[in-house]
Amino acid sequence: MVTKNQIKLVVSLKQKKYRSQHGLFVVEGQKTVNELLQCGLKPYKLFVDDSHNPHDFAGFELVSKTLLKQMSSLANPSGVLGVFYIPDPKKMEESDWIVALDAIRDPGNLGTIIRLCDWFGVKHLVCSEDTVDCYNPKVLQATMGSIARVNMMYTNLQNFLGKTKLPVYGTFMDGEPVYDKKLPLGGILVMGNEANGISNEISGFITERISIPQFGEATAESLNVATATAILLNEIRR
Amino acid sequence: MVTKNQIKLVVSLKQKKYRSQHGLFVVEGQKTVNELLQCGLKPYKLFVDDSHNPHDFAGFELVSKTLLKQMSSLANPSGVLGVFYIPDPKKMEESDWIVALDAIRDPGNLGTIIRLCDWFGVKHLVCSEDTVDCYNPKVLQATMGSIARVNMMYTNLQNFLGKTKLPVYGTFMDGEPVYDKKLPLGGILVMGNEANGISNEISGFITERISIPQFGEATAESLNVATATAILLNEIRR
Repeated sequence: MVTKNQIKLVVSLKQKKYRSQHGLFVVEGQKTVNELLQCGLKPYKLFVDDSHNPHDFAGFELVSKTLLKQMSSLANPSGVLGVFYIPDPKKMEESDWIVALDAIRDPGNLGTIIRLCDWFGVKHLVCSEDTVDCYNPKVLQATMGSIARVNMMYTNLQNFLGKTKLPVYGTFMDGEPVYDKKLPLGGILVMGNEANGISNEISGFITERISIPQFGEATAESLNVATATAILLNEIRR
Repeated sequence: MVTKNQIKLVVSLKQKKYRSQHGLFVVEGQKTVNELLQCGLKPYKLFVDDSHNPHDFAGFELVSKTLLKQMSSLANPSGVLGVFYIPDPKKMEESDWIVALDAIRDPGNLGTIIRLCDWFGVKHLVCSEDTVDCYNPKVLQATMGSIARVNMMYTNLQNFLGKTKLPVYGTFMDGEPVYDKKLPLGGILVMGNEANGISNEISGFITERISIPQFGEATAESLNVATATAILLNEIRR
């Protein structure tokens, strides 16, 4: 039986404060829940509503559709909801490429960037403390399970960049075209805020200023940060 | 004075049916409205609310904040709203690259792809008839004025691809890695639906099957269609 307190707990996890306090987060959808289980993330509680066949959901607690809807963040809940323990960050290996985010605010952008790191085999994603929380339901919806395969770390980005021995790349309008650069096998790629780009505090740590060339008439003002990340990770790996 | 019928008209333009019927669409925000005017798009009516200085808005009709909110599609209207005539499609030049979309449904994805075409100097974007309407308010919000610089055409994609003399590229999981391909100076890049990829009806017209290589463990299932478009346009132009 699911208790009132458990429902209250799950609902509270929509807020970052309670996710941090309890060390728990919520994902929805059979596919994503299964992916997280397969990746070895530790479940706290798994729920399935009574529109599903309970035999297909060993280890899940059966709840009514109404109860599951109460716990869900979605307008149309899928009927499968998992509460997982937030994993401990893994030790950072300073070889290969690392992506660092400076104040990314849009959950969809962060979700897409996590998925891109997964696609391009980038193991570590370092986020400034004012980057949107990666366990935000809207971020998780956009990551499609990639959250389980990319090591997330929230930290003071200035301290982190101050200590690294890797070259630090950042995108600026007046940077050198990325096509002309010989990119090394390891480095840090810093992506800046949606509206303001890389902040003044961080830009001092950038050792390599790069840009994505624009074609045709120079009119489109900028690329969305997630599409720019896609292009740069492709340049790094190709 | 703005009449009741005018307000009714503007509100009706949130629906595709009425946009087609009247040949009009709505954009919001001072920057986007100005960009469209600069690009030579013909305005039908321009509105500004009384929180702005009317001297900065010659040719705009002054309305109350309440009225503008009534016309707006946004939760927080910016106070500047333009109604524009839908431009006639320009004659397609079959040189250079053309992007073709097969049933893209998400307004944010279409908006991002329009912005990418603008950035990479792709002049023509051909959409299947079941692709989301490019004058949908959510698409326009994502395009940031690029809509005025990319020639949009909605058509029967099978007919279009059946007639072209350009090579037709499409992304498939089992396609040849795009890095190994020598890309020509002109072609058609077909991008498929978010859930199903390129449809069976369209795949017969693809002459070059390509893929974006995945790195690390093969786990992330697929890239979002907008990020995949970003990577492929970059490959085409670099």
